[in-house]
Amino acid sequence: MTNHRLTPLAHSLPASVPFVGPETQERAQKRPFTARLGANENVFGPSPRALSAMAETGHWMYGDPESHDLRAALARHHGTTMENIVVGEGIDGLLSYLVRLFVAPGDAVVTSDGAYPTFNYHVAGFGGALHKVPYVADGEDPESLFARAAEVDAKLVYMANPDNPMGSWHRGADIAAAMSNLPEGTLLVLDEAYVETAPEGTALPLPFDDPRVIRMRTFSKAYGLAGARVGYALGAPELITAFHKVRNHFGMNRAAQAGALAALEDPDWLAHVQAEIAAARDRIAQIAGQHGLAPLPSAANFVTIDCGRDHAFAKAVLDGLVARGIFVRMPFAAPQNRCIRVSCGTPADLDAFAAALPGALADAEKG
Amino acid sequence: MTNHRLTPLAHSLPASVPFVGPETQERAQKRPFTARLGANENVFGPSPRALSAMAETGHWMYGDPESHDLRAALARHHGTTMENIVVGEGIDGLLSYLVRLFVAPGDAVVTSDGAYPTFNYHVAGFGGALHKVPYVADGEDPESLFARAAEVDAKLVYMANPDNPMGSWHRGADIAAAMSNLPEGTLLVLDEAYVETAPEGTALPLPFDDPRVIRMRTFSKAYGLAGARVGYALGAPELITAFHKVRNHFGMNRAAQAGALAALEDPDWLAHVQAEIAAARDRIAQIAGQHGLAPLPSAANFVTIDCGRDHAFAKAVLDGLVARGIFVRMPFAAPQNRCIRVSCGTPADLDAFAAALPGALADAEKG
Repeated sequence: MTNHRLTPLAHSLPASVPFVGPETQERAQKRPFTARLGANENVFGPSPRALSAMAETGHWMYGDPESHDLRAALARHHGTTMENIVVGEGIDGLLSYLVRLFVAPGDAVVTSDGAYPTFNYHVAGFGGALHKVPYVADGEDPESLFARAAEVDAKLVYMANPDNPMGSWHRGADIAAAMSNLPEGTLLVLDEAYVETAPEGTALPLPFDDPRVIRMRTFSKAYGLAGARVGYALGAPELITAFHKVRNHFGMNRAAQAGALAALEDPDWLAHVQAEIAAARDRIAQIAGQHGLAPLPSAANFVTIDCGRDHAFAKAVLDGLVARGIFVRMPFAAPQNRCIRVSCGTPADLDAFAAALPGALADAEKG
Repeated sequence: MTNHRLTPLAHSLPASVPFVGPETQERAQKRPFTARLGANENVFGPSPRALSAMAETGHWMYGDPESHDLRAALARHHGTTMENIVVGEGIDGLLSYLVRLFVAPGDAVVTSDGAYPTFNYHVAGFGGALHKVPYVADGEDPESLFARAAEVDAKLVYMANPDNPMGSWHRGADIAAAMSNLPEGTLLVLDEAYVETAPEGTALPLPFDDPRVIRMRTFSKAYGLAGARVGYALGAPELITAFHKVRNHFGMNRAAQAGALAALEDPDWLAHVQAEIAAARDRIAQIAGQHGLAPLPSAANFVTIDCGRDHAFAKAVLDGLVARGIFVRMPFAAPQNRCIRVSCGTPADLDAFAAALPGALADAEKG
């Protein structure tokens, strides 16, 4: 095509999707899911104050390119300054900016095999060389991650805490201690998307000015605003300022800015959601156990269930659930792909999951 | 900083903002603007159906990564196929993806001097070499743009029709005719953000499969949803598919998808807004004329006013308006920067503009 002179890098990329969305599956199946338990969304939803704030927004106006009021509130919330915070279009959007800032073709990046595919998508999209280390005991392992980073002279090393898709977690203090082995010149990208559903002590207990790490947070999980696309990064001011070189300054949805601010200012609703999530985790674990499956401990808004056999078996269970109207997902990499991952749902959602599981297991047994 | 090894390109970029937002100015002035007439927003707002659709959205769910329903509706609206359409986070977001796909460091891109700064920001952000041609008769000039594209072997040539910041426009048929001089290997990026407020015949009358051009459209202007961040591009399927290599698949706000769909399906509201905009343009022209200034013809949702002297004078008028609580902007490049640009407003907004203008002019006269 003479008119489409893509860059060599763009030409080499596949037109791929990190995840298939549930709506795509619903269109293929020609029916909606009964329970939407696959995307680690928060069915308990955002604070009613967030809904009001979004409804009252003047949608005809562009959003404030500085996200000033939200950043000011976040700075108060975290006991830091606005200069330590950049707001963006979800963690996905912020990861894209971060990778663009750091990764030129051939630059080394380290992550865990089976960790967040969208991060890998961005690294590939900017031509980075992605190096993967295996999970250890179904969790991300800072020691192996940082050791590999040293070997390959990584510019970025990605780690989620709590982890997705396994739900495992480390004490923040343990990660801070492991960072003594983080190589000079490697930035730790610490994805704390699920930290609000984790035990006290999970967040990294280091100053936000520490130049060795950037923390990613979101309103998509505990705050129930996945559809709004609001994330933020916490880091040293010099690093945060670099985002202004490349970010889409007018890219934030105005209602989303207002909704996130209102959600942040409603700690009672957050506590309510945290309790609902804890109860749902217990219920998912109970359902799994009743059917001879092993739920893994989780600090996130989902429970990953060890189906006890190989990937083929777990995939058959997943397919059986999907065929029965239950949207779930599963880990990508071996041996974690012996599991399925079930997001927290309402009691009715989990009743539907409980009702569908025996049939899915029976089908998988028949294999 | 040992931990912040930005790419050489990222290191070289300024932490700049294409535009200063009105909220930033309000914070600096410690008071809100009386009339918000600077960002070419649509104060008449979105369809009430769009407001309902957004309020009814389950904000806890991620948006459909395919924007399937919106694309299907757009395909019907334009008499084309979904494969000709990609939906993105406003035209700004789509321009960023497009430039990323095409522009490697040093690649040539052509635009008009004084045209859309955010496009230039993206080109600089990916290391492109930006070549500018002057406006002709206060309008973008396809002949000069395409001739310069041939000279520099441009990968992209940007043109807006109607134009921002001048409000001038070409018949679509004239652009199609000029495209006989568009070089092989140059893609025309035709920004039609304002086409819904322009006379019949302004849209490019070529098939959407034509591989020489990609058209940018938005819900931010006539549809009144600037805060929602929904744009779309129309082009040949092969070109549209390339966006899937780099776009943020889960980047669309779910409520915005629903709001845009509802807005598209309310042509009566669009007609109402078009009439309000036409009336506001007439009123702005009248106010300008009453004070001895020359309004330029406009096909957009703003009127650019020739202040009749040099840039310093126009800037003084603008400053006088801003100081009086009227948010307006002005063209960046000479000689167009002898003008100020006033977005369409409500009758009350324009009363405020009319009340502030004599004082602003008097101050500017005193210089």
